[in-house]
Amino acid sequence: MADRHDEVRIRVRYPEVDRMGVAHHASHFTWFEVGRTEFMRQRGVPYARVEEGGIFLPVIEATCSYVSPARYDDVIRVLTTVSEVRGARVTFSYQIESENKGGLLAKGNTTHAVVGRDGHPRRLPAFLRELAD
Amino acid sequence: MADRHDEVRIRVRYPEVDRMGVAHHASHFTWFEVGRTEFMRQRGVPYARVEEGGIFLPVIEATCSYVSPARYDDVIRVLTTVSEVRGARVTFSYQIESENKGGLLAKGNTTHAVVGRDGHPRRLPAFLRELAD
Amino acid sequence: MADRHDEVRIRVRYPEVDRMGVAHHASHFTWFEVGRTEFMRQRGVPYARVEEGGIFLPVIEATCSYVSPARYDDVIRVLTTVSEVRGARVTFSYQIESENKGGLLAKGNTTHAVVGRDGHPRRLPAFLRELAD
Amino acid sequence: MADRHDEVRIRVRYPEVDRMGVAHHASHFTWFEVGRTEFMRQRGVPYARVEEGGIFLPVIEATCSYVSPARYDDVIRVLTTVSEVRGARVTFSYQIESENKGGLLAKGNTTHAVVGRDGHPRRLPAFLRELAD
Repeated sequence: MADRHDEVRIRVRYPEVDRMGVAHHASHFTWFEVGRTEFMRQRGVPYARVEEGGIFLPVIEATCSYVSPARYDDVIRVLTTVSEVRGARVTFSYQIESENKGGLLAKGNTTHAVVGRDGHPRRLPAFLRELAD
Repeated sequence: MADRHDEVRIRVRYPEVDRMGVAHHASHFTWFEVGRTEFMRQRGVPYARVEEGGIFLPVIEATCSYVSPARYDDVIRVLTTVSEVRGARVTFSYQIESENKGGLLAKGNTTHAVVGRDGHPRRLPAFLRELAD
Repeated sequence: MADRHDEVRIRVRYPEVDRMGVAHHASHFTWFEVGRTEFMRQRGVPYARVEEGGIFLPVIEATCSYVSPARYDDVIRVLTTVSEVRGARVTFSYQIESENKGGLLAKGNTTHAVVGRDGHPRRLPAFLRELAD
Repeated sequence: MADRHDEVRIRVRYPEVDRMGVAHHASHFTWFEVGRTEFMRQRGVPYARVEEGGIFLPVIEATCSYVSPARYDDVIRVLTTVSEVRGARVTFSYQIESENKGGLLAKGNTTHAVVGRDGHPRRLPAFLRELAD
């Protein structure tokens, strides 16, 4: 099972921060997605090309635990892993860390179905199974 | 020339507000779009159905002047007009007003091309010309 | 424990929909927040006023299960409940339903800490405990 | 008058793209802001620190012309200039170019007031005047 990590650095944008002065909790799901995009690119299967090939990975479950706030202009690191591949589903796990101060900011998961252009379930392509190796 | 106004009420959402405590300037373009969507629905041409018919209205120019800030949980009103129809282009004009306190918060325009599913320009459909009447 | 529901109707906005033609999974957390805002207003404790009083409810855990897609211009209903109040934490639960077609689109939870202006934990105010009644 | 350019590379994110398959027109204003943030950092005046010093630059006018669409996973370059400094106002100009294919995708401006923590106008600080040199 997966213990391969990849990371991407992101700088927190002004509109991602709310009036409490910290990144809004929905922003983390966008950062997870940036992490997932880079993870797949580094594994040789850019998600844009996956979709062009008629395979889509809609999110069927998403969860995030918030440990410490991110602020405007902070640099964060998203570490992405494939934590489970089962049936026609794949689960990615994420950790968001602070680049400046170190320490965990948030962690979470997204579970994805595998569907074709028609929205119907598809068998998990080999390249997705291999992401977990 | 158009002087027909339609309006829609919107409550400012938490993530639309930035760390200055006021609505981020990009939010207004989303509110303009809500105004435009309701304007077209009230005119009998819901934009979702326009796109299903193979006509798309990508924005080619957008502008906004910000007069007074909107805050979380404020109720605003977007007033939408078609201000110009020329060639294969249509321009919508917007005013955003405060429901609670009255007064203008922002005004702006969006100009749209008319294209088909292939991205190529299309003649302006009659229903769009009539929006300006 | 809570079984009080409140609901708010939301029309899906154009930028909330992604290139799969369905609402992006991060949008649901913003809709949950709209539901929570209206729930608290209907209970007589508008969240804007809670923050003005120096009490903040940052999200410490968020989760969503996606059952069926929402599309541009669909009308959805968010039903909000307080499902748990414990220590200095409060958990809201949400269901998103389709107004047009009926049926569940998504469900989820957000758990919130109760902190003061200084970010330090605070005892749960009575009005929050009463939300669960 | 300004002719100093700085640039920042941005990869288009999945939720920034709408159901036409192209970046939503509001995304460009967020990218302009990323460009402005990096421009100021490279000039030695990180905007986060400017705000900590009690100076805020709310947008009072924003405009964008869209030339060619940006798509998911495209790499774009934002080139930022200070095009005008007058009274207590500063105008930034932006060009967005395609990294992959070259060519202009969009250009625009944002004009900012200079205000203090109280929201009242302030004299333009020297460091902002110098941005235009």
